[in-house]
Parts: sequence; C-alpha cells; structure tokens
Amino acid sequence: MTVAYLGTGFRGFAAQPGIPTVAGALREALATILRHPVELTCAGRTDAGVHAWGQVVSFDAAEGVDVVELQRRVNKLLAPTIVVRDAAVGPEGFDARRWATGRSYRYTVLNRPVPDPFLAHLSWHVDDELDLRSMQLACDPLIGEHDFTSFCRKPPSSSRPDGRPPSMVRIVRDVRWVDLGEGVLRFDIEASSFCHQMVRSLVATMVAVGRGRIRAGDMAWILRSQDRSKGAGLAPPEGLCLWAVEYGGRTGSIDSDGAAADR
Amino acid sequence: MTVAYLGTGFRGFAAQPGIPTVAGALREALATILRHPVELTCAGRTDAGVHAWGQVVSFDAAEGVDVVELQRRVNKLLAPTIVVRDAAVGPEGFDARRWATGRSYRYTVLNRPVPDPFLAHLSWHVDDELDLRSMQLACDPLIGEHDFTSFCRKPPSSSRPDGRPPSMVRIVRDVRWVDLGEGVLRFDIEASSFCHQMVRSLVATMVAVGRGRIRAGDMAWILRSQDRSKGAGLAPPEGLCLWAVEYGGRTGSIDSDGAAADR
Repeated sequence: MTVAYLGTGFRGFAAQPGIPTVAGALREALATILRHPVELTCAGRTDAGVHAWGQVVSFDAAEGVDVVELQRRVNKLLAPTIVVRDAAVGPEGFDARRWATGRSYRYTVLNRPVPDPFLAHLSWHVDDELDLRSMQLACDPLIGEHDFTSFCRKPPSSSRPDGRPPSMVRIVRDVRWVDLGEGVLRFDIEASSFCHQMVRSLVATMVAVGRGRIRAGDMAWILRSQDRSKGAGLAPPEGLCLWAVEYGGRTGSIDSDGAAADR
Repeated sequence: MTVAYLGTGFRGFAAQPGIPTVAGALREALATILRHPVELTCAGRTDAGVHAWGQVVSFDAAEGVDVVELQRRVNKLLAPTIVVRDAAVGPEGFDARRWATGRSYRYTVLNRPVPDPFLAHLSWHVDDELDLRSMQLACDPLIGEHDFTSFCRKPPSSSRPDGRPPSMVRIVRDVRWVDLGEGVLRFDIEASSFCHQMVRSLVATMVAVGRGRIRAGDMAWILRSQDRSKGAGLAPPEGLCLWAVEYGGRTGSIDSDGAAADR
C-alpha cells in the first residue's frame, strides 16, 4: 500500500504498545478488516511528527483479497489523518523495505517575517532572511557516495548482529533547494537510503549556511570530518515528509501485475 | 490588525465565555500586553471551524502604542494558530466592520477519489467526479444585487431594533470557480457583505450542480424563489476562508498613515 499521513499526532511510524503510531493505527485497521493479525514492513521509518506522502508498507494477507475494497475500508477507518493512496498485490516475497532501491524526502522551510497558520504543521518557520544561493551551493558536496556520520544520529552498537557499528555510507543521487515563492523553500533529496535523522541534520546545517553562520564552502569539510558536533543540530520534524519510494529504478508503488509502476 | 487563523480548534470568531474563540484568544492576549481590557470589532464574523487569511479587527488603545511591538508580542503568545500579519494605527473613528466596503471569501473543494491528509483541514473532500464547467455556469446569475434569502440562514427577527427582518439583499461583485489542478477547485466570491452561511450555502448548491443533481440553469430560479429549501444545504466549514477585506475600494488593511493600503 502507498500511504500518506499527517505525522502531527503520531509518535512516528513504528508500532509501540499504548502509544499512537502510524503502524499501530494501520495494523489495528487491517486486523479488523482482514480478521487476522498483520505484521507491517515499511520503506522508511519516519520519526515522531514527520509526515509521509508516499510511504510504502507491505504485509501478508490471504490470497484473493480485494485490494480496492481493502483500500476503501482502511480509508473509511483512518482517513483523513492516514490515507491509503494505492493498494496492490506485490510480487512473491515483496518486502517494502528490502526491495526499495531509493527514497526521496522533502523538507519545507517557511522563510517569512511572520508565521502562517495554514502551513505551520507542514513547515519550519524561519524568520531570519536566508541566503538561498548559499544553501544551493552547499548541496553540491553531498552528491555521490559518502559517509554521513556528521549528519546522522549514532545508532546503538547492538543494532547489528555482529556488534559492529552499522555503516553510515549512503549514495545521494539528487539534492536541491527549490524556491516555491512567497518564502516557501523546499529541500528535495533522493538517496539509496537514509541514516537516522539525516535529512533534518542536513537541513539544520544548510539553514545555518543560509543564515550566514556556516559558510557554504565548509559543507564538504563538515561531511569529511565524520563528527556530528560540526553540524548545526536538528531541524524540527514538522517540515519533513517522506515523499516517494523507488523500486527497481522506478518511483512509486507496486502495481497489480507485480511490476513497478510509474508515479 | 490583519489577522490569519486556522479555525479548526475554535468555536468561531465571536467571543463566548468559557469557549475557545478567536476573539476570546485575541482579547486575552491584547489585555495582557496592553494592561487594559479591549473590545474587538471584526470585518467578518466567521463561524465555528472557518478559517481566515485577511480578517481585519479594530480596537481602541492608548495613543502612541508601538504597533510593530504589539504585533510581535501577540504573535509570540498566539502563533501559529492565530497570526497578526499586519498592525497599524487606523484613522480617527475607524471600525473594522462599519468601514469595510467589501469582503472576499475562498472555499476549497478537493475533488479526488481519495482524501489528502495535508489538505483535509482546509478543504471539503468530494469524491464524486464534479462537472466544473456546470459549476462555472452556475456562477453567472449571482453577479449583481440580489436578495440571497435562498442561500442564507434566517436571522432571529429580534436582530434589528425595529423588529423587522433584516434585508438579505447583497451585491456580489465577482464570483468564480478556479481549477488549481490535481483536483483542487477553489470558489472565489467578492461581495459588499455576506448574509450568515451564504458562501457555504452557495458552495453546497454548486457542488450539487457539479454532481448533476441540480442543473446550472436552475441557479437563477433558486435565487429568485427566496426559499432556502430549494438549495442543497450547507458545505462543511473547514473549506471556507475569509480571504480579504476591502476599505474604500482597495483591499487590505489600513496602513500607518490611516490610508487604505494595497495588498
């Protein structure tokens, strides 16, 4: 299923007992409709308060399930906070996380003197005037394969079975700041996958560049330092949105033939 | 002050004791900052759940108040749900309601098969396919001076000092449906002033036209009937926004010279 959600009221995607989470709400709705418990896998585990437009989740259901009817019934239970935009039967063994070959995120900054009540829950309001040109220059060193330790929350060492720290090497395919007018600045980034808090760390550092506190030319050096203290902390979650997931080189969900569908 | 707000959590603009209202929140903030109680007048009393981008409110304050500082301090207390976009000293005797010569409202319909979590609080989701051309045709008979009884909630007869029912005659200057793409349809209407629930009644009837339940050609007849039961009820409040207020032929707030300012 391709799922959009407003992250505001949720403590993130991953299910936690007794806490409102996206996976918890989806699992409960699916269990009610399918009449059996389901285990969900998602393409990107979003943090508390982070939104999604094109999250992809997979789960096992009995053969012959009517996916159109399933979509309709889940939406009846959960919309408009969580909306199933598309549902399809995947190919044998499909796993939303393992089969994903790329993810793209969008981060929205509202750069105006005063906040906006209609965009507040979907953006980071920055009232200092930002130098967009510098922020755009700061994108260039990120393209390609790099160790993103400087821009990621360190995972617990127990997160791999062999006890070795997991790799922070990721491949960034595209990264840019887009000026949407009226002070709305959007950061678009596509990568193979992302480390924890990577987009919000990058955005915070780039906004520091836009404010003139860090030079655009220092971005490459901060990346190479592999030292998180060289960055500028973390941008707030409400500006972030998991935009799309790519399977086999094409963006979007799996269509009913099991082939990757264009979006 | 020109004020924007997200109406979702408020029981409308007008202050009511013990109930969250926009005027109640503004009055409390202003009283805290100015250290005296204030009475607010607004250009358009929005109903529960209705939003505003360009609401105008006026009140009396001591001479020499620093309006820039006042705006900053109100925003510090109330943003991002309520935001003062602009503040200025008005001309002698200025009254946000009585001096207003026109108001414009926008109503957003999201016409897609599935809802959208990011637009849900700002639009009416209609999943039946709408015939926009018919809805645009249905606008034409509304232009000009008419009695809008068919599209308004009847006020209590005691609402005028002489006990006579208030006039429902209004002058509509412009009215149109705009296709913003991706199923976002926006209804824009400008009038001298509006009767209670007029925009939401018009939108409900026009959406019935778009659904093919009422013919576009019947709009003129429904208007002339002066019978509210001929319409199609009331569109939900979350799609409605008081967009701008006009003073002396020009849209917007009063600038610091006391002249009407362009927006």
